[in-house]
Amino acid sequence: MTKIKANLFGTHAVRNAWHNPERHIQALYITQQALKDFQSDLSVKGVKRPAPTIVDKKELDRALQGSVHQGIALSCSDLPEVFLSDIIVQSSQREKSLLLMLDQVTDPHNVGAIIRSACAFGALGIIVQTRHAPNFEGVLAKTAVGALEHIPIIHETNLARALENLQDNGWFAIGLDERGSQTISEIDRHDKIVLVLGAEGPGLRRNVADHCDQLVRLPTSEKMPSLNVSNAAAVSLFALTA
Amino acid sequence: MTKIKANLFGTHAVRNAWHNPERHIQALYITQQALKDFQSDLSVKGVKRPAPTIVDKKELDRALQGSVHQGIALSCSDLPEVFLSDIIVQSSQREKSLLLMLDQVTDPHNVGAIIRSACAFGALGIIVQTRHAPNFEGVLAKTAVGALEHIPIIHETNLARALENLQDNGWFAIGLDERGSQTISEIDRHDKIVLVLGAEGPGLRRNVADHCDQLVRLPTSEKMPSLNVSNAAAVSLFALTA
Repeated sequence: MTKIKANLFGTHAVRNAWHNPERHIQALYITQQALKDFQSDLSVKGVKRPAPTIVDKKELDRALQGSVHQGIALSCSDLPEVFLSDIIVQSSQREKSLLLMLDQVTDPHNVGAIIRSACAFGALGIIVQTRHAPNFEGVLAKTAVGALEHIPIIHETNLARALENLQDNGWFAIGLDERGSQTISEIDRHDKIVLVLGAEGPGLRRNVADHCDQLVRLPTSEKMPSLNVSNAAAVSLFALTA
Repeated sequence: MTKIKANLFGTHAVRNAWHNPERHIQALYITQQALKDFQSDLSVKGVKRPAPTIVDKKELDRALQGSVHQGIALSCSDLPEVFLSDIIVQSSQREKSLLLMLDQVTDPHNVGAIIRSACAFGALGIIVQTRHAPNFEGVLAKTAVGALEHIPIIHETNLARALENLQDNGWFAIGLDERGSQTISEIDRHDKIVLVLGAEGPGLRRNVADHCDQLVRLPTSEKMPSLNVSNAAAVSLFALTA
């Protein structure tokens, strides 16, 4: 029996990490069944990849404690760190730039879906607070269906200071907040926007909200003024890019 | 020890159902702790409500098999059935009407979030297929944070026929599909829209897609062409109402 130690699982999460040259891969655990669909992925041009370790579905079930793994899991390195200064340089070569900042949003399903939407709408990266960030692996990575390999996560110890840094470099900070006087469709256009979202319930922390240039709300009804945080992120990203 | 049989749990789901005169309520199970915040809700004007049954957190944990219940659960009747013909009559008195149709979307977290967003953006109702609908209770209701009491769910045995019925009454059917030639922001405006969403992976079934007046896509990137289905629903609802 194989001793399985995996940090990624699920078809899309594993396939995208497997093809990402920035990931060092220790092991690929895969069932005979799943291997049929992965044969053409096994060799990656210019990157060294280990031979697959064939496992039973039950072994994976046990090792991943009941997570839906689709018969495929990976033991691999974390992605290399990306710094806010890298993003600032990158944005100077673009006409429009959008960043997302998550203020203590930690639910892995929500953060995974947010990473997916941020990638779909072309955001340059996602800023999270070092001390209150989820682990970017497992169910979060599975929910992001591979987007984690395509959009950098920037860890910052102090979000208010990160906003100041961005503002000094010409970025406009928009905080999503039910108290906003304008809706997200009504605000002026800006070339470099950082969109800040708080956790459901507490919302943006005071100091983070105070550092935003503008608080905006979504055009929701009185009966249901707020959305699930990943839904709110998707709507906001669409509204700012469409 | 109390024998707990509950179909709703979580603060918002329970509070909204408790105040909904269309729900018959058999029992309210609540912890001493949660009761503090529910005291002012106990009597509902013009509606008969049972006295609360005080329970231990552990009893609720056991009865709800580890679901996050926030110390409050309800045993209550289902909501009365709503028919498509009711919605059609209702829409005749409105300038703009929007309906959502879910083609075999069944994940309770996704459907719950979709109900919440549909309510937030003022949709008149959500049409589901009788044979492939989730149960509108439990974790789905909790994820909908009370929206289930404010937006009707219409069960139809044949979605294609339901679309024909709507089209005969002046509705325009938009199917969300990556193959759409236009994006959702580009399409013409219509006063009565039914937005049709399929499940992640399979997407819209052939016959349902064929019955749509137009297939549209979201303006997503090549790297990540699709969103989580509840995120796609939220973006589409916003795009059609903003």
